[in-house]
Amino acid sequence: MNPGENLVSPEVHPDGRVTFRMYAPNAKSVGLAADWMAGRPPQPMKRRRNGVWEITAGPLDPNVCIYAFNVDGITVADPVNPRVKLRARTSGSMVEVHSASEQPWDVRDVPHGKVEIHWHKSKSLGDTRWMWVYTPPGYGRQQNKRYPVLYLCHGSNDSAGGWVLAGHANFIADNLIAEGKACPMVIVMPYGHAVPFGSPEEDTNGEKYEIYLLKDVVPFIESNYRVARNRGSRAIAGFSMGGEQSLEIGFRHISMFSSIGVFSSIPQEGFETRFYFMLLNAAKTNRYLRNLWIGCGKRDYLLEDNREVAAMLKTLGIRHEYVETEGAHTYAEWRIHLSLFLPRLFK
Amino acid sequence: MNPGENLVSPEVHPDGRVTFRMYAPNAKSVGLAADWMAGRPPQPMKRRRNGVWEITAGPLDPNVCIYAFNVDGITVADPVNPRVKLRARTSGSMVEVHSASEQPWDVRDVPHGKVEIHWHKSKSLGDTRWMWVYTPPGYGRQQNKRYPVLYLCHGSNDSAGGWVLAGHANFIADNLIAEGKACPMVIVMPYGHAVPFGSPEEDTNGEKYEIYLLKDVVPFIESNYRVARNRGSRAIAGFSMGGEQSLEIGFRHISMFSSIGVFSSIPQEGFETRFYFMLLNAAKTNRYLRNLWIGCGKRDYLLEDNREVAAMLKTLGIRHEYVETEGAHTYAEWRIHLSLFLPRLFK
Repeated sequence: MNPGENLVSPEVHPDGRVTFRMYAPNAKSVGLAADWMAGRPPQPMKRRRNGVWEITAGPLDPNVCIYAFNVDGITVADPVNPRVKLRARTSGSMVEVHSASEQPWDVRDVPHGKVEIHWHKSKSLGDTRWMWVYTPPGYGRQQNKRYPVLYLCHGSNDSAGGWVLAGHANFIADNLIAEGKACPMVIVMPYGHAVPFGSPEEDTNGEKYEIYLLKDVVPFIESNYRVARNRGSRAIAGFSMGGEQSLEIGFRHISMFSSIGVFSSIPQEGFETRFYFMLLNAAKTNRYLRNLWIGCGKRDYLLEDNREVAAMLKTLGIRHEYVETEGAHTYAEWRIHLSLFLPRLFK
Repeated sequence: MNPGENLVSPEVHPDGRVTFRMYAPNAKSVGLAADWMAGRPPQPMKRRRNGVWEITAGPLDPNVCIYAFNVDGITVADPVNPRVKLRARTSGSMVEVHSASEQPWDVRDVPHGKVEIHWHKSKSLGDTRWMWVYTPPGYGRQQNKRYPVLYLCHGSNDSAGGWVLAGHANFIADNLIAEGKACPMVIVMPYGHAVPFGSPEEDTNGEKYEIYLLKDVVPFIESNYRVARNRGSRAIAGFSMGGEQSLEIGFRHISMFSSIGVFSSIPQEGFETRFYFMLLNAAKTNRYLRNLWIGCGKRDYLLEDNREVAAMLKTLGIRHEYVETEGAHTYAEWRIHLSLFLPRLFK
């Protein structure tokens, strides 16, 4: 029998170490490339006699890890792992490490909200695209209840489902709501690539996404969901490219959003110039912005950029919270950031 | 620059031919393995000087094709194609071929229903699992309207999202409803692996799935959705493993389901013996079953098994419709079958 057929990969050990395996009898080299490695080259795997390559990593933090194999220079997802990280290009695989202590993103035995997928023709972009929308447990039961809304943006080369399938945003909300730490809210996850990922016109993406969000997404949500339609009930957050989008859209439309979450954001080019007046008028900006939350991992390659933004805000007297977590530029980190951010909202 | 970085794959040509490409400079052989090949060995791809392997196939039918690359004996999804066919094990890639004439599964400019993902703790199985539920356009607008329900089962090594992400069940329903050919209905897509795919206890899957469907899924749907709760408003259908599940559960619970759809089903072991009395009492069975629809592709390796079932039903005088379509054991075929089956329901 082909040893690839019943291969187990990844295998999570009780102590948090993980064994990764790939059957590649003819390969000259196989390596493991994982998000926690923060850009370091793939770690070589060892070939066993039966053609299976193997490596044991960790112990890893109790969280999600995203990885791929590098086979003779080609990056491929783990062929036997069903949990695929969908991307605009080049998918990876996911593994969940658990620990004795429950984490906010674990699937727990609490009431679960649901996630609705809508397909709609975007008036501003012209294409038919999907958005994913989380509604909390009990949503719709009380006739007159109106929920606050978080618009949650993903990073570059991700999908509208990323915050659910990789980020567990729905489980994080379920758990924090069950513990009374977060308000029940609707979470809207649009597709963040307004122009195709990797296309020549990608530098117009931010501008087009902003129009799409404001002209298509917000009106759709506010006419189809039981949501409150005031700035105190709207927040925007995101990671990486979505962090930049959130800060940009939040600052430009301060009359619409009362809270902004910026997780491991890519650099804000020209931010000081573009928002000169808001940044200079700290007293007014502080009256508007109930939460300006910035987080970045200490091993993130964007750490210095995020420190700079935080330092500038501090100098100018713009009220904000700046948090450094331990990890790299990973979904694991954004789960942590979301878990810290949600309890701040709509209180 | 690495020629893999801006590689286009797959490239669909206007005439329906498709070029598949993979960057694998060190590989000794790369082949294309696709579902339309119906089990034939992978077709060898040609290596270009820059390390890109290439093949042009087709013209292919205007439908979905699922494929993977075989690189020196290892099967991997297309690394640059974002459309991944999620499976319990060994994902593939998907490509959509369009033609001048619109197909029932195309994304058209018609009102779209939505798809809701629920996570719930299964009482019968003990785990927390998801189910995907389609609701038609306008669902929930009329207070007193109750919708009929189709329980739609997937095949072995698939996921609860398969009928949407690969099968376009939602778009098929949207289009047929828009044309007035199908009734607005709720479509419920549970996860069909009651025990893990490939596990030693897999021979108990059918039995456990039946209990899960009847004890968990149906009660959940009937208490959380605006659906009619009578047999005339319930149908069950599925393909491959899900075809067997549908015929089995439909026949065993004929007081619950009035219509059964069986697409490219795996063989029904012991069917005649187990349903001896129902099969013998054709008059009574015919009174109960409004639709018994069986379809199979002419190039499907299960064609003879499906012909046998149809022949037996004919001999016994059980009213049914048996349709042979042109293709193999593919999602493309099940899109066709669903498009033919939906207009039969709830009329």
